[in-house]
Amino acid sequence: MNVIENAEKECAVLGTLFQGIVNEMKNSSSLWEDLASKANKMHIQLKSTIITFSLFLDAFQRIADLATNTKGATREIGTALTRLILRHKSIEQKLKSFTSSLVETFIQPLNERIEEWKKSANTLDKDHAKGLKDYKKLRNELRKKATETVKLQKKCRKLPKHDILHNKLNSAIQEVSNYYGMLEEREKQALRSAMIEERSRFCTLFTLLKPVMYF
Amino acid sequence: MNVIENAEKECAVLGTLFQGIVNEMKNSSSLWEDLASKANKMHIQLKSTIITFSLFLDAFQRIADLATNTKGATREIGTALTRLILRHKSIEQKLKSFTSSLVETFIQPLNERIEEWKKSANTLDKDHAKGLKDYKKLRNELRKKATETVKLQKKCRKLPKHDILHNKLNSAIQEVSNYYGMLEEREKQALRSAMIEERSRFCTLFTLLKPVMYF
Repeated sequence: MNVIENAEKECAVLGTLFQGIVNEMKNSSSLWEDLASKANKMHIQLKSTIITFSLFLDAFQRIADLATNTKGATREIGTALTRLILRHKSIEQKLKSFTSSLVETFIQPLNERIEEWKKSANTLDKDHAKGLKDYKKLRNELRKKATETVKLQKKCRKLPKHDILHNKLNSAIQEVSNYYGMLEEREKQALRSAMIEERSRFCTLFTLLKPVMYF
Repeated sequence: MNVIENAEKECAVLGTLFQGIVNEMKNSSSLWEDLASKANKMHIQLKSTIITFSLFLDAFQRIADLATNTKGATREIGTALTRLILRHKSIEQKLKSFTSSLVETFIQPLNERIEEWKKSANTLDKDHAKGLKDYKKLRNELRKKATETVKLQKKCRKLPKHDILHNKLNSAIQEVSNYYGMLEEREKQALRSAMIEERSRFCTLFTLLKPVMYF
């Protein structure tokens, strides 16, 4: 009996950890959506900033033209100002590329991933729940089998030379332990999938951020 | 007569150039005001952008905290994300300093200068106009003096030994040429002031931009 209790406990620990991670993933949807939404607001603001920056540079260019064309011989100042503005125009261009890359390589893909993540967390949860349901159905039968095994063990101790009985016991022990081994393996596999899934979310965030940051 | 005509022409050229520069300065007020206004709009946009950037970083930090505190052992990813956010917080800080420096060292002083420049261009114009008025009053008298000098020259040619007559001629020539010399000097001075004033505007623009650009 002890072996089965231990196996059940082990599986329960794995199952609880799995459920915890899956719940975390499900509950964090709003945080990810908030990140995408805040990035989008920032992108909208950046676009307006670029427009005002561009208008500022245009006004600046009119001052440079004034210096270039004035009768007061400030042509070389006008040229220097124009050079300065051209350098700032390249900053404007960089800002534009950065802003559109923010949408194309970060916000849009992130939004797509968030939708995928909702589905994948649900799938993980459902698949695990289905396995658990099968297990609960089988549990009583298994416990009965385990009790029979204990009885068989007692009998075997009394009849140490009864080969058929011993073979029966061995196959019963094998059956029960096989099942729990399989169950534990399934729980471990589910937990591994959940952990990989969760970790991959943060790795995806890195991957999406990288091209934006390298601007 | 030829000498006076030349002197008058010379003064007229200087005066026209002066007036051109002063008019340019007066008419450019709207361009300078536009520059200050566009810089101000950019500053307002930058402030909004900083707010959205800050909100984005907060949302990002919540994701990093999620990674740090999750059961899925992504603590080291959480730490890396937090480090990344801290580095971006320093960009936010730089943007804040840049934005306030834009107001304090560029927009505000530029607005003050624009007001000063309106006054100084008017002062230059008025002072020059006053000088011109005095000159116009004197012009007829001067022309009479110049005609007398021409007559004196003819007399002197007939009476080459008449010392008193010669002295009179010399002092008359001296008087007329002194006056035109003075007039020319005044026009040159006015033109120099106008040119320095105009040039100093563009130099001021450089001086005000420099601390903003070095951010």
